[in-house]
Amino acid sequence: MQGLAIMGHGVVGSGVAELFFKNRASIQARAGEALELRHVLDLRDFADLPYSDVFTKDFEQILNDPAVAVVAEVMGGLTPAYEYTKRLLEAGKSVVTSNKELVAAKGAELLALAKARNVNYLFEASVGGGIPVIRPISQCLAANTITEIAGILNGTTNYIMTKMITDGTPFADALAEAQQKGYAERDPSADVDGHDACRKICILASLAYGRHVYPEQVHTEGIGAITADDVACARAFGGAVKLIGRTRLQANGRLQCMVAPMLVPGESPLCHVDGVFNAVLVRGDATGDVMFYGRGAGKWPTASAVVADMIDCVKHLKARKYLFWDEGAPDYVADWTDETMALFVRAVVSDPAAAESELAALFGQVDYPQGQLPAGQTAFITPAMPIARARALLAQWQTGKPVNVFCVCD
Amino acid sequence: MQGLAIMGHGVVGSGVAELFFKNRASIQARAGEALELRHVLDLRDFADLPYSDVFTKDFEQILNDPAVAVVAEVMGGLTPAYEYTKRLLEAGKSVVTSNKELVAAKGAELLALAKARNVNYLFEASVGGGIPVIRPISQCLAANTITEIAGILNGTTNYIMTKMITDGTPFADALAEAQQKGYAERDPSADVDGHDACRKICILASLAYGRHVYPEQVHTEGIGAITADDVACARAFGGAVKLIGRTRLQANGRLQCMVAPMLVPGESPLCHVDGVFNAVLVRGDATGDVMFYGRGAGKWPTASAVVADMIDCVKHLKARKYLFWDEGAPDYVADWTDETMALFVRAVVSDPAAAESELAALFGQVDYPQGQLPAGQTAFITPAMPIARARALLAQWQTGKPVNVFCVCD
Repeated sequence: MQGLAIMGHGVVGSGVAELFFKNRASIQARAGEALELRHVLDLRDFADLPYSDVFTKDFEQILNDPAVAVVAEVMGGLTPAYEYTKRLLEAGKSVVTSNKELVAAKGAELLALAKARNVNYLFEASVGGGIPVIRPISQCLAANTITEIAGILNGTTNYIMTKMITDGTPFADALAEAQQKGYAERDPSADVDGHDACRKICILASLAYGRHVYPEQVHTEGIGAITADDVACARAFGGAVKLIGRTRLQANGRLQCMVAPMLVPGESPLCHVDGVFNAVLVRGDATGDVMFYGRGAGKWPTASAVVADMIDCVKHLKARKYLFWDEGAPDYVADWTDETMALFVRAVVSDPAAAESELAALFGQVDYPQGQLPAGQTAFITPAMPIARARALLAQWQTGKPVNVFCVCD
Repeated sequence: MQGLAIMGHGVVGSGVAELFFKNRASIQARAGEALELRHVLDLRDFADLPYSDVFTKDFEQILNDPAVAVVAEVMGGLTPAYEYTKRLLEAGKSVVTSNKELVAAKGAELLALAKARNVNYLFEASVGGGIPVIRPISQCLAANTITEIAGILNGTTNYIMTKMITDGTPFADALAEAQQKGYAERDPSADVDGHDACRKICILASLAYGRHVYPEQVHTEGIGAITADDVACARAFGGAVKLIGRTRLQANGRLQCMVAPMLVPGESPLCHVDGVFNAVLVRGDATGDVMFYGRGAGKWPTASAVVADMIDCVKHLKARKYLFWDEGAPDYVADWTDETMALFVRAVVSDPAAAESELAALFGQVDYPQGQLPAGQTAFITPAMPIARARALLAQWQTGKPVNVFCVCD
């Protein structure tokens, strides 16, 4: 018999408790022993639940209960989740979490603490909700060198982009609709400005390359500046604009890591990931492209990932899992404009022939779309080159003016 | 230090050896100890390899080497792989394999043997090549009840279907091209007739629902009867015809399991899985739809999955992994026509109005496509109902004649 506790009884926490009781028999069978939910920490009262008797408002009760072996931290935020997690790990209890903010900010420190105490700190639910991503990357791809990860990591922004692309809905209306459906918060900035996706690509980059990447090191753009014309020009290339988190280890040992709207070509499996769905594309030297797809958020998908991690902790009480990465460093992440990528440019030109010939002189060759462009506009894709160099060339361009510029995620 | 052995030095086996030496440092770091490749079993001579000295033609050398803890069986086929695997497990060695034929035929027996000896029998590479599928299903989705699995499980047939769909290539030409590119064998029947996909859905069904499903219990159709008109009619519905392996536990406790070309609607993520890529869609009660995508075959993807399993065996020499299922039973798999599905029918009619009104009388409602149909033909989708019932109704239809009938995979 192993004791469990849940910290936080919000959307995810209540899902964890309900899923535990609903599928208890199969969960215990997979864990290999009987499990008991001993405490749920929340400051609110929940008097009418079948498990009302296990609620507590006192964290110390969980910390000091020797029967508790595994704790799910699903409170979110840094305070008090950070302190609680540290104290639980120090006390020799394993912790699982869906808290991407905490893992992105303090993952290396908490993993080191877990290692020192020979317990586990697992966070499958922190990226991609119910999609298995963390464990496959760390385990199934263990024989690979990962050359690149690119993902649609935020369902809210992908829902908004999908409405703009498929229904022609303007950004503000699509956002309002996402809020009405409960996909976006009343204050949508963490999603819309890219911060949520940034935390997730930090976690994936830390895991894949073994050193912590901090959110403040990552160039992050949101989707607020994308217009219907950008969407139309992307379609003319057979692709779509999506908010992408991307990371790649450069040959110089420094890391490329950024979050920005990018042109995703139609041949990429990421191009067809629509609505609230998320997907993570992992490029390995042996496997080639592997993609994980599913609902990146929501009560049940997230709770199912948390419960699966709890099962795994119970099975590994005496043997730590693979998960580990070292502390980061100030100069580990390269300037984002050092990265070599093609740029997708939407521009206005008055004399298309003159503009084309000047672009050919500047860039050698640029690609134009097969499809229809909005009147008076042009769109083109530059050759792949350091972003800074492409931007410098664009600044020299006399016969046209870029309106919006995106990286191409191929 | 743990000793390893590889049985079979064909495409996959040589990939396993090469990958081991190429990424040895990171593989050992992940395994947590030094690893030594002690034997490679093959009847041929390989004199010029850097590891020529470890080749043997004698299985007993591996069996009787106490330093060998983990063996990769990448010979394929049932004989002698079945006997060798049994003897290795009985001798207390863990075995990993890419041999889907053996796992589909004897998985329950070999898993029971591994359990009895407290060793592991792992086979991530047997389904989906380098795509992590087996482990995520058994582990990350541990808190879910899996309601359905549907997959594009064979890259050869998917390549042929993609050529037919995107380039209008006839079946025979697409097959010849696949053979020329090395995607199809000279005798392509195991792929084209659906047997390879059948073995894989048997493995997934056994894993997801806990009882062995044998290939001979599974209704299996190939892609040889699909025509350009079928492809065109599917496109008129916005979808595509794909070879799908599908399994679902019916409410009566019996299993639906089949392999057949099916209409995949455009909204399904499976519809956009093209070329040699594979994908497995897993529907869970908590996670909703989760999909795993990547190259389902090939030297490096498959070898990378085998090596990852070897690492996992080294880490779990004293603690078995989750993988297990019981022996099957003769009446466990339901007659495939008992399953409730919508049917996609391509038909010839002389009087479209009469045909429509008769179909409405027979089925209540059928759906017609928005897109263009081949001249003189119609195509429609029936409501979901037991397949046997829909076929009986189609047999009664007087004013039209079905030419080809497919299930709809939604």
